Parts: sequence; structure tokens; C-alpha cells
Amino acid sequence: VKHIQSAQNPQVKQWKKLAMKKERERTGLFLAEGFHLVEEALKDSGTVVELIIADETDIPHRLDYKDTPVTIVTKEIFKSLSETETPQGILAVCKQESVNESLADANTFLLLDAVQDPGNLGTMIRTADAAGIDAVIVGAGSVDIHNPKVLRSAQGSHFHLPVLTGKLDEWIPKLKAKGVPVYGTALENARTYTDAAPGSTFALLVGNEGNGVSKHLLSITDDNLYVPIYGKSESLNVAVAAGILLYSLKNSANV
Amino acid sequence: VKHIQSAQNPQVKQWKKLAMKKERERTGLFLAEGFHLVEEALKDSGTVVELIIADETDIPHRLDYKDTPVTIVTKEIFKSLSETETPQGILAVCKQESVNESLADANTFLLLDAVQDPGNLGTMIRTADAAGIDAVIVGAGSVDIHNPKVLRSAQGSHFHLPVLTGKLDEWIPKLKAKGVPVYGTALENARTYTDAAPGSTFALLVGNEGNGVSKHLLSITDDNLYVPIYGKSESLNVAVAAGILLYSLKNSANV
Repeated sequence: VKHIQSAQNPQVKQWKKLAMKKERERTGLFLAEGFHLVEEALKDSGTVVELIIADETDIPHRLDYKDTPVTIVTKEIFKSLSETETPQGILAVCKQESVNESLADANTFLLLDAVQDPGNLGTMIRTADAAGIDAVIVGAGSVDIHNPKVLRSAQGSHFHLPVLTGKLDEWIPKLKAKGVPVYGTALENARTYTDAAPGSTFALLVGNEGNGVSKHLLSITDDNLYVPIYGKSESLNVAVAAGILLYSLKNSANV
Repeated sequence: VKHIQSAQNPQVKQWKKLAMKKERERTGLFLAEGFHLVEEALKDSGTVVELIIADETDIPHRLDYKDTPVTIVTKEIFKSLSETETPQGILAVCKQESVNESLADANTFLLLDAVQDPGNLGTMIRTADAAGIDAVIVGAGSVDIHNPKVLRSAQGSHFHLPVLTGKLDEWIPKLKAKGVPVYGTALENARTYTDAAPGSTFALLVGNEGNGVSKHLLSITDDNLYVPIYGKSESLNVAVAAGILLYSLKNSANV
């Protein structure tokens, strides 16, 4: 166990930089904060590089970190690293999943095009996990998948299934070539979602909060689906729509 | 059209008080902010009492307010009334729906027990609207239905269907007596949601983000449902779960 007392310590400065997307990309690292996220990260073998713990933090017994390097820092230093208003006093420096990680065994996919709200992105990763989806692929124009608010909303699901960034205009043809039916979501020229019964393999493509999925991507899917609006609201929240669609497609696979 | 230049004007002070739940309850009024919410409020006849517009605001033509009293205020006064960082310059003072409003024609209900996050509450009101639900009844321990963040997340659905506060332990027996099957949501002693096929009338009861629906309420429902977790996440976001359940119940009614 190492101790750091000075906010000027170069290690502290390096950790602070991980608040920036650029630095996360350069290093392939990100920070997971709080007992629940760190617990899930520790269960995902090979993910946690080291732990940063604030002085006097009372760590729950369920956290198993005996083989993980630990640095104890002052409460002031911890506060400067934390993204929350009332920090729990624990951060894990985590390795990002490699894009080369094999998705050969994956049968079900959630593809996200230009989702900009971190709460929505995190909630959809959590929902994909709950629905038993095998992988989430996040395309260009989306908020960074390792943004602290995305991690918080996903409640640890980053450590349960592969969450990758990728070019959706390359992934869609690749999935179709593998025999995975790809469903876009659209309000026009689309079929009611309950008509789709793909069986055990499928990909669902969901888009930006205001503009939906880009026209180009919608033109290369197998089929496009919509959730009917029975009342007077103009649309559904994108994360709610994704939940309705994922569970409907998944249930068709379970029948 | 009235003009107010002084922040000390008693009318301005009175409007400012509507930021507080107590004052909203005392007066039966609330504020709806921004072009979209005000547009939806104006379409809901009898709802808008008056409009507050910031000096030099460019109002979209689609807003029809010719019979509504208008007060023009300085940008500084408007800013002091606004709940947003980049105000659009329009606020509507709205009447709350009367609890005595007849729900005699309503067949489908969303009941919410102690939902505390304004984003979740607003998103569920919006989802109920989209799913064609006839009324939302919000029980004790929930965030105020006229909280500005709730209104924003609901995107105008408050003006599309009755959204009322009420005692759920009184509403549930009342609905059952009318022949409306009431479904709670729970993780234990509950049936998979796809087993429920209520037909054209039902009530869905959803609960607090952390603790779910209170035990007492679960004990007086007709049946309790759950959404299966196929992956490793512990649960679904409450608004996502409500969306999956409402659309599933609604689809059973449409078959």
C-alpha cells in the first residue's frame, strides 16, 4: 500500500487527466467510482489496474481486492479526483476493453448511433445487460462510453458485457454477412415492432435523441421498426424505446 | 399586454414563489417553461391563466395565445423566474388539474408509489401518454408532479392526460371494485409480465427506484409482475421497466 499526501504528486496529476476523453483514449484507461461500480469492476477479472482510496474510508467486506495495488490518498486529493458531490472514497483505475476483443460468440447486439445524453447511453447499456444482449457497439457522434455519468447510469454493466466503440456503417454489413438480422428504428417507412420475430440472433440499432438513426444507416439495415404512439406524446424517450424493443425481440427468441 | 420593468414588482415576487411546492399547492398553479411546453399547455383548453414573456423574445407562429393575458418582463426579471440555463423567454402560469376531475371514462391507469427522481417521474408520464394510458395517479413520497424537471422530462404529457396525486391505498381497492385488474411490480412472488393479458382495462403500479413498491400496496393488488433479468445487471431503470410493462399490457388489450 502506497500513501500520497501531496496534491502536486505526478501520479495524482496523471489520474486527474483521466477526466478527459483524450487522455482516456491515449492511455486505454478510465476511472470507475464508488463501492458498487468498483465491486463490479473487481469481479471482471483483469480489468482493475489499481485502486485509489481516500484516507479513513470504510470499505465494505464484499469488495475483494487483495491482489490489487492500492494507493491511499488524503481526502482533499480524493475530492479533486472525484466526480460526485458526496464521494464514497474509492476509485478504480480500469483498463478499457480492447476493440479487438473477439465477438465471435455474440448473437445479439445493441448498436447506438449518436446518442448524446450520458444518462440515456448508460441506461441503454444497463438495459442491454438486463435483456441478456451479448454486446453493445457505440458509433460516432455519441458521448464517450467511459464518461463518469455514463458509467454511473449503467450501474456496472460495462463490466458485464462488451461495450465497444466502432463504425456502424462497417458493423451493419459485417453482421448481416454473418446472418444476424439488423433492425433499425424509425418513425417512417417502418413496421410495428411486434411484427419482428427474429429468433435467437439479432441486432437492434437505436439513434440520436432528437434526430433518430441517420438516414444512411437506416438504408442499409434489413428492416426498420417503430413503437406505436397510442396517445398524444410525440415520441418516447430513447432509452424507454430501446427497452421495449430489446425485450420484445428477446422474447421472440425465447419462444 | 402589460409591461413590468421592476424586479420588486409584487407580481414578480408572486410568480417567483411558484418555484416552491407549498406555494403551488396553496394557489393550485404552476409554471410551464419553454416553447414546446407552453404550446402543449395552450392546446389544453382552460389550462393557461397567463403568459410571461421576456422582452425581445421571438415567439414561434405555431403558438396560439391571442385570448391569453400576456405580461412582458425585462430579460433580467425573466432570468430570475426561469429554471433553465438558456431560457427561451416564455413561461405559462397554468392551473393544476382538479383532483375532483372525473376519471369515470378512464380504463387504463399508471400508479406511481414514491418515485423520487424527477427525470424518472416525467419520463413515466410521457411513456404513459405514448402508450395511450388514460390517467396517471402519483402517490405519497413522490417528487411533486409540477416540479420543473418533471414537467421538462414529460415533454408536455401533463397537458395530454390527467396526472393526479392521490392515496394509492384508497385508489387500488376503488379500481378493483370497478373491475380494473391492478398489477403491482415486484422481484419476488411475482409472475413474468408476459403472462398477464388483462384486455382493455388495467392498472399498473410501479415503485421507488431503490425499494420498489411498498409491501402493503403489493399485498392489496390482484397480481404482481416482474420483468426477467437475463444478464448480470441487478435491475432495470424504473422508467424503462414501466415502458416494457405498459406496452406489454397495452398490446394484450389490442390483440
